[in-house]
Amino acid sequence: MLIGLPRAKTKAIVLSNHKEEKMDKPIISSLLDIDFYKFTMGQFIFLLYPEVRTKFAFTCRTQRSPLPAEIIPEGMLREELDHAMTLRVNRSDLHYLRGTNEYGKPMFQESYLDFFSSFSLPAYNLEYRGNEILLDFDGLWKESTYWETIALSIISELFYRCLIKKRGLTRFDCDLVVAEGRQRLKKKIDILKANPKVVFSCFGTRRRFSFDNQDYIVGILTEELPNQFRGTSNVLLSKKYGLIPQGTNAHELQMVIAGLARDNDEALRASPFKTLDEWWNLYDEGLSVILPDTFGSSFLFNTLPEKYAIKWKGFRGDSMDMIKFGEKQIAFYKKYGVDCRKKLFIPSDGLSVEEMVRIQNHLGDRIKVSSGWGTNLSNDLGFEPLSLVIKAVSADGWPLVKLPDNPAKAIGPQDEIARYKRVFCYDGGQIVECRY
Amino acid sequence: MLIGLPRAKTKAIVLSNHKEEKMDKPIISSLLDIDFYKFTMGQFIFLLYPEVRTKFAFTCRTQRSPLPAEIIPEGMLREELDHAMTLRVNRSDLHYLRGTNEYGKPMFQESYLDFFSSFSLPAYNLEYRGNEILLDFDGLWKESTYWETIALSIISELFYRCLIKKRGLTRFDCDLVVAEGRQRLKKKIDILKANPKVVFSCFGTRRRFSFDNQDYIVGILTEELPNQFRGTSNVLLSKKYGLIPQGTNAHELQMVIAGLARDNDEALRASPFKTLDEWWNLYDEGLSVILPDTFGSSFLFNTLPEKYAIKWKGFRGDSMDMIKFGEKQIAFYKKYGVDCRKKLFIPSDGLSVEEMVRIQNHLGDRIKVSSGWGTNLSNDLGFEPLSLVIKAVSADGWPLVKLPDNPAKAIGPQDEIARYKRVFCYDGGQIVECRY
Repeated sequence: MLIGLPRAKTKAIVLSNHKEEKMDKPIISSLLDIDFYKFTMGQFIFLLYPEVRTKFAFTCRTQRSPLPAEIIPEGMLREELDHAMTLRVNRSDLHYLRGTNEYGKPMFQESYLDFFSSFSLPAYNLEYRGNEILLDFDGLWKESTYWETIALSIISELFYRCLIKKRGLTRFDCDLVVAEGRQRLKKKIDILKANPKVVFSCFGTRRRFSFDNQDYIVGILTEELPNQFRGTSNVLLSKKYGLIPQGTNAHELQMVIAGLARDNDEALRASPFKTLDEWWNLYDEGLSVILPDTFGSSFLFNTLPEKYAIKWKGFRGDSMDMIKFGEKQIAFYKKYGVDCRKKLFIPSDGLSVEEMVRIQNHLGDRIKVSSGWGTNLSNDLGFEPLSLVIKAVSADGWPLVKLPDNPAKAIGPQDEIARYKRVFCYDGGQIVECRY
Repeated sequence: MLIGLPRAKTKAIVLSNHKEEKMDKPIISSLLDIDFYKFTMGQFIFLLYPEVRTKFAFTCRTQRSPLPAEIIPEGMLREELDHAMTLRVNRSDLHYLRGTNEYGKPMFQESYLDFFSSFSLPAYNLEYRGNEILLDFDGLWKESTYWETIALSIISELFYRCLIKKRGLTRFDCDLVVAEGRQRLKKKIDILKANPKVVFSCFGTRRRFSFDNQDYIVGILTEELPNQFRGTSNVLLSKKYGLIPQGTNAHELQMVIAGLARDNDEALRASPFKTLDEWWNLYDEGLSVILPDTFGSSFLFNTLPEKYAIKWKGFRGDSMDMIKFGEKQIAFYKKYGVDCRKKLFIPSDGLSVEEMVRIQNHLGDRIKVSSGWGTNLSNDLGFEPLSLVIKAVSADGWPLVKLPDNPAKAIGPQDEIARYKRVFCYDGGQIVECRY
């Protein structure tokens, strides 16, 4: 029996193409409409940390009006979240995951696929308080981790759907929004064609304008830039277009594993290495990309032993100026006499097409650059994008910390931040306290 | 880079739903739009008989006008066949095949998937002669085998597209054809709901009215009869709807392997057992369904040793009265004291819903029946269906023979048929000679 079918009200929509009806279909229609790293991390968590309990919490970093809480009725948000909880993978989804071998031999173990075959998203906690949406996911890490990009995609698309309704946009107004998006995409593609060495992937699932918009963009890039577009982090769209699903891991891994060290400073300091080694043991070279900025990138760049320079494929940069980051990465390889030109640098922090060209021009001769392009790709139709995140905030009841190079992205209570600063010799500058 | 994209002219069609344009899209848009047994046999051939050359030939068994050659312009047929030759699988297709594990551990070996990853359909020979379409596929068995259901789907759908054009059906006439098909489907579903023990699969790829019609029917059956509809032989639709792809093997295996015995009667007589044993060695119990009627089902039912009764899952019946066939199968198990109720009988010869009910009522208490429902399911909108086949006619230059229980389906030159009759003690009655 087929499971994971969309709600009944969607069925009618398939028969027609009216924009009004499309606005009404469920935002998430498949558990594969998620970033690939949720599966690579999901299996890691399932196999190595199946008992750990975590809390993930939503934050809207954008502070200007209109805020999501002002625009999205609570009932509509609940309806979309509830609908996502009804989804199950079907056989075809499992075939797709089981068949994934682009990062080495089929990478998903049967025990994990078996777990995922009956998986559904666990419960959420939602409260509207003033202009804030308080949304968190409290439970087993191996289950709650999947909410991250799904809940973000929901809030992002719902925000624009409701904004369009509230502002009373006509059908023609909506057509003009689409037209603006296509013209902006055309300009980007022209710049990229003029800079054929720039290669990139679409990382735009979480803050996209809509699923349909991301779907359209990924389809067009596949046709227009076959030698520069390397794929997308979105698994459903990778499946649809036959692309290599993109992604490795995120800050949550180092954050949670650090948190499990609790008040033992030595274990805390060792935790990033523990995380990297466990990751290598599971995925070997295939997914060997280091995300060094969880506790300030200087710590890992200064302390990683030679084997991480020799064996691992490269690094992903997610905060600070990306050229500065690339220079730090190149200096790291130089220290060990490793040839950078075979190593990979994945910039992924708020990129624009101009920024990708600038990075390639500065660093492209010395290191392989492949950018992860997000919001500016999947949400650029004239509306202001929102800076929405869902982050792990506690593990087994212990508060978690993130100390990226860009201190505006720091997360954690002040005393824990101070401790992490000390343990990891953090040099990222001013720290701000997060609500959680 | 994505491969296997439909022709440029299709792209516009995706944007609209006009029937006129849909009539113009390529009939085959994916190498997965094929019966599953082409892959299970394809891997078998690839691994065990990679050097064998075969010829497959098209025959229209229907003799009344309008014949395909009278309706389908040669240029249009060439265009569709040529288009199919441009298709390649994409990564997502390979993930799907690699992930197939419903018949045991992931069943497709990497060497085979590697072969198929760069596969394209080989050349064809086409000639219009009077009211006949002479179409054959001459080359390596491991390549030409894939043409069977693809070429049949093309000729079948093209026939109706051209017939509709020739008869000048208006848009409303076409809508009424669709309406008639839905009403007939509704009647079938009602009968099936009233007979909940009848279970079945859709085997209707080769003689379907259209891909869209098969797609629609499979989608509806998935929703309406979740406990009775077991899936489809069509791999693309299995992938789309998350169904288990259905199918095991066809007559071509026993026919070709018999042909390779050439004029050695002893080897000829042993060839069906050789085929079955090689099949078991590759797929074990997962695909252990015997198709016994290649040279008259009496031969195998009379001579198969006990292990085929004990270990193999069951039999598929493809000619003669299906209740008589089922009784023969039950008698076979009785001979060895095997409990029939755990064994499988797959009737698949020109079934109607009434016939499926009749079979279930007669045999269902004694053996598990699961019907393979073809043309009457996928091509029942008011037009007469055509009896089209593509069969293996020679192997390494030696003529091939098929002697099913229904002698109207016999294939081969008269002298070879006489020899096979003698070797296999054929009791199927009057033999007619095929054109090839």
